[in-house]
Amino acid sequence: MAIKATALQEAVYRANMELAASGLVMGTFGNLSAVDRAAGLMVIKPSGVPYEKMTPADMVPVSLKTGDVIGVAPRPSSDTATHLELYRAFDCGAIVHTHSEFATLFAQTSRVIRCMGTTHADYFRGDVPVTRPLTPAEIDSEYERNTGLVIVETFRGNKIDSREVPAVLVAHHAPFAWGPDPAKAIENARVLEFVARLEWRGQTMAPDAHRPDRHLIDKHYLRKHGPRAYYGQ
Amino acid sequence: MAIKATALQEAVYRANMELAASGLVMGTFGNLSAVDRAAGLMVIKPSGVPYEKMTPADMVPVSLKTGDVIGVAPRPSSDTATHLELYRAFDCGAIVHTHSEFATLFAQTSRVIRCMGTTHADYFRGDVPVTRPLTPAEIDSEYERNTGLVIVETFRGNKIDSREVPAVLVAHHAPFAWGPDPAKAIENARVLEFVARLEWRGQTMAPDAHRPDRHLIDKHYLRKHGPRAYYGQ
Amino acid sequence: MAIKATALQEAVYRANMELAASGLVMGTFGNLSAVDRAAGLMVIKPSGVPYEKMTPADMVPVSLKTGDVIGVAPRPSSDTATHLELYRAFDCGAIVHTHSEFATLFAQTSRVIRCMGTTHADYFRGDVPVTRPLTPAEIDSEYERNTGLVIVETFRGNKIDSREVPAVLVAHHAPFAWGPDPAKAIENARVLEFVARLEWRGQTMAPDAHRPDRHLIDKHYLRKHGPRAYYGQ
Amino acid sequence: MAIKATALQEAVYRANMELAASGLVMGTFGNLSAVDRAAGLMVIKPSGVPYEKMTPADMVPVSLKTGDVIGVAPRPSSDTATHLELYRAFDCGAIVHTHSEFATLFAQTSRVIRCMGTTHADYFRGDVPVTRPLTPAEIDSEYERNTGLVIVETFRGNKIDSREVPAVLVAHHAPFAWGPDPAKAIENARVLEFVARLEWRGQTMAPDAHRPDRHLIDKHYLRKHGPRAYYGQ
Repeated sequence: MAIKATALQEAVYRANMELAASGLVMGTFGNLSAVDRAAGLMVIKPSGVPYEKMTPADMVPVSLKTGDVIGVAPRPSSDTATHLELYRAFDCGAIVHTHSEFATLFAQTSRVIRCMGTTHADYFRGDVPVTRPLTPAEIDSEYERNTGLVIVETFRGNKIDSREVPAVLVAHHAPFAWGPDPAKAIENARVLEFVARLEWRGQTMAPDAHRPDRHLIDKHYLRKHGPRAYYGQ
Repeated sequence: MAIKATALQEAVYRANMELAASGLVMGTFGNLSAVDRAAGLMVIKPSGVPYEKMTPADMVPVSLKTGDVIGVAPRPSSDTATHLELYRAFDCGAIVHTHSEFATLFAQTSRVIRCMGTTHADYFRGDVPVTRPLTPAEIDSEYERNTGLVIVETFRGNKIDSREVPAVLVAHHAPFAWGPDPAKAIENARVLEFVARLEWRGQTMAPDAHRPDRHLIDKHYLRKHGPRAYYGQ
Repeated sequence: MAIKATALQEAVYRANMELAASGLVMGTFGNLSAVDRAAGLMVIKPSGVPYEKMTPADMVPVSLKTGDVIGVAPRPSSDTATHLELYRAFDCGAIVHTHSEFATLFAQTSRVIRCMGTTHADYFRGDVPVTRPLTPAEIDSEYERNTGLVIVETFRGNKIDSREVPAVLVAHHAPFAWGPDPAKAIENARVLEFVARLEWRGQTMAPDAHRPDRHLIDKHYLRKHGPRAYYGQ
Repeated sequence: MAIKATALQEAVYRANMELAASGLVMGTFGNLSAVDRAAGLMVIKPSGVPYEKMTPADMVPVSLKTGDVIGVAPRPSSDTATHLELYRAFDCGAIVHTHSEFATLFAQTSRVIRCMGTTHADYFRGDVPVTRPLTPAEIDSEYERNTGLVIVETFRGNKIDSREVPAVLVAHHAPFAWGPDPAKAIENARVLEFVARLEWRGQTMAPDAHRPDRHLIDKHYLRKHGPRAYYGQ
C-alpha cells in the first residue's frame, strides 16, 4: 500500500518539480524545503533522487529542533543542515537552493550582486550579499551546518533584513533564496538569476557604472512591498 | 453577464498577450497601451494581473486629458502616468514598456545604444537615448508622471524626432518603445532588444569601434521609411 | 489559375523557409538566392514579404547579365544587385544574406573572424574577411551593387579563394555566405555564426590568444575538402 | 536481411543519439565510443553519417590492439585513433568527443578550465587541463593518434588521475570527456560545458578571482565519489 503524503509533502514535491522545470537547477542538483513551524518540522527533497522518480511521499520530514528525520524516509538532501539553520534564524516559510548559472557565477567569484536598477529593487531592497569563505575547520566538520551559520552571520553582521533581501550567495558555492511560501521562494530565485545576469553584463561593459540613488531603490521596493504598496489589484 | 470589450480593448489585450509571449517581459512586468485620440482616451493593461487571467474587458480606459479611469475597471498599470505624458507629447498610437534584458542593461548603466550598423538604422535613425536620472524630489512625488516628463525632456533637449527614434531608455530603470500601432510598437521593442544585445557584445569586445558614416545610417533608414522608401512590395 | 513554379523557384523557396526557421534571420530580413548559369538567371526571395505568405511562385527570376526581372513577378529583394555581382565574380551556386547576431557583430565592428581552431578550419580555410566601408559616393548611388563590388574587391585584393572561404562580413552591415547549392550555403552561414560566437567569447576573455599553426588549419580543411579528404563515407 | 546489432552497438548507438539531442555537438560533429575490454574491442560512431540515418548496426567495432575494423562496417569516426590511445592509457569505459561551445572556447584559447567552485568540484577534482599544441610533424603524420598521445602525455606529465578529472581540452581543437559508461561520459561532457560557461563568465568579469581553498574542492569531490561519499541514497 502506498504511503499517503501530507499536504506539506505534496506542496514541497510540486515545488521541487517546478524547480526542476525552471532551468535554475542542473541534474539532481538543487533542492527546496518548506516549514511547518507549529508542527516543529520542515520537509525537504531527498538526496540525489532523479526528479522523474520522486513522489510526494519521498519528501523527507525533519525535526526543526533536532535535525532528525521523522519516521521512515529516504535520506534527506545533503544540504539539510543548511536549511535548518536558516529556518532557525530567518522569518521565512520556504527555502530553495539552486546552481543557477549567473547567481553561481557571483558566488564563485565572491562578489555581491549590486542593486543597479528598478528590476532588482522590485524584489531585493539592496545588494544581495556574499558570505565569507568557510575556514578549513568549518569545511572539515559539520560543513553543511556551517554553511547555514555563515549565511546567518552575513546577514547579522551587515544588518540586512532577511525579509527585505531574501537571497544570499555562498562564497565559491551557489545561491540560496527564500520567501514566505514555496512559490515566492522560487520567484525570488528566478529574479535573483535575472538580476545576476544583468549585473554580469553590466560589469563586463561598464564596471564603473554606479548604483541608482537610494530614493529610487526604496521607491520601487515599497511600491510592491509593505503597507504603502500600490502595485497590483 | 460579461462586459463587452471595445475594439481598442480587444486590440490592447491581444497585443499584451503577444508581449507576454515575446520574451521581452518577465512575470507580470511590462505593459502596452494604445490610444484613441478622437475619443480622448488610452487603453492600458491592468496592474499586476497574471497574463493567464486577463480578459479584453480588463483593459483599462483612461482619459488622455485627466488621467482618470473611465467607468468601472481594474486599477490600471502603475506606469499609466508615464504613458499619458508620452501620448501628450509624441505622435504615436501605441506604447510598450518592457524589462527586456539588454535594453534594461543599457538603462541600468545609463548608456545610450549607439547606432553601430544597418540593422539599427533600419529601425532607429541614430542612437537610442537615455534619460537623466530623476531627482529625489521627482521620485518622491508623482514618480511615474515625472518618468514620462523626463523622457519628453530627453527628446526635446537633444532635438530627437520621436517618430524617427521610437524608443528610449529610462536611467536605472528600463526601456519604453512606441509606434503608430501596437504591432509596430512591439516590433520596435523587439529590434531595440536585438540592437542592444549587439551593442553590448560590441562594447565588451571592441569598445573603440566607431559608428558608421552618417550616409549609411540615412541610406538604410530611408530605404524603409519616408516617401523614397523602396523596401517591400 | 495559380502560376506554376519552376524547380529552381521551388528550391529557393524551400531554402528561404529553412533559413527563416534557422534563427539566422530576424523578421523578413535575410534572403537566399540560387543560380542557373546555363539559363543565365538567378532566382531570389521577393522584398519584404512575410515568410508565412510566400509561395514558390513568388521567388523572382532575374537575368544574370542585365539584372532585369524576368516575366511578371514581385519586386525582388532589395539586395538583388549584391547577389548578382557575387555570382558574376565567384564560383558558387547559392548565396545567403543574414543578420545573424554574432557574424553581424563582427561586421558592425569591422573585424575579421579569425581562424582560431579546428571547427573554423573544417569549413573556412583561414580568417573570414571584412570589407572596407563604402564611401559616401558608393552609398548614394547603386548602394547594393557597390556592396557586391566591395566584397569582390576584398577577396581579390587579399588573394582569398571564395571557394575556400565561402563567407564575408560587410563593414557596419552584416554577413553573406555562399556554397555550391542552397543547403551548403545555409550550412556555411550556420557555421559562420558558430565560429563568430566562439571568436567573440575568445576576444572578451583572451584577446592575446593566437591562431593555431597553419599546419593544423590545412590539416582540418583538407580532411573534409579536396581530393585527399578522408572524412565521411 | 538486416544485420543484427550487438548489445554494445545498441548502447553506443543510443548514446550517440542522446549526444545529438544534447546540444553538445553541431551537425555530425562529435562522436561517442564504448569499450568491451574482455572482447578486446571498442565500438564507435561511423564517420560523417547524419544522425537521422544511423542505425545500431552502423556502429563500428574496432580492435583495441590493432585499430582494425572488425568485420564489414562503415568507415569509423575520423577520430578513432584518438579514442584508441585513450582506452589504452586510461581506466574508462566510454569516451565522448564534442565541439560544445564553451569547452571548445577554452581549447581554442589554450586555457585550462580552473576549478572555481563546488559545481566543478562535484565532478572534477581540480582544473581540467589543456594539451600542448601538436607539432607540425605530429599533425602531418598520424594526426589523430598523436592527438590521443598528447592527451595521455598531459595527464602523466601533470600527474593527473584520469578517473578524478575525466575530461581534457585539446589545444586549438575541442574537448574529450570520459567515464565508466556512456551515460557517465555524457554527463561529464555536460558538466564540463557548464563549468566552462561559468569560468568564461568569471574570466570576463573578475579575471583576478582565485580558486577556493583545496579543502572545499576535496570536500565536494569526496561527498560524491569514493568510499566516504554521502550524497544520494
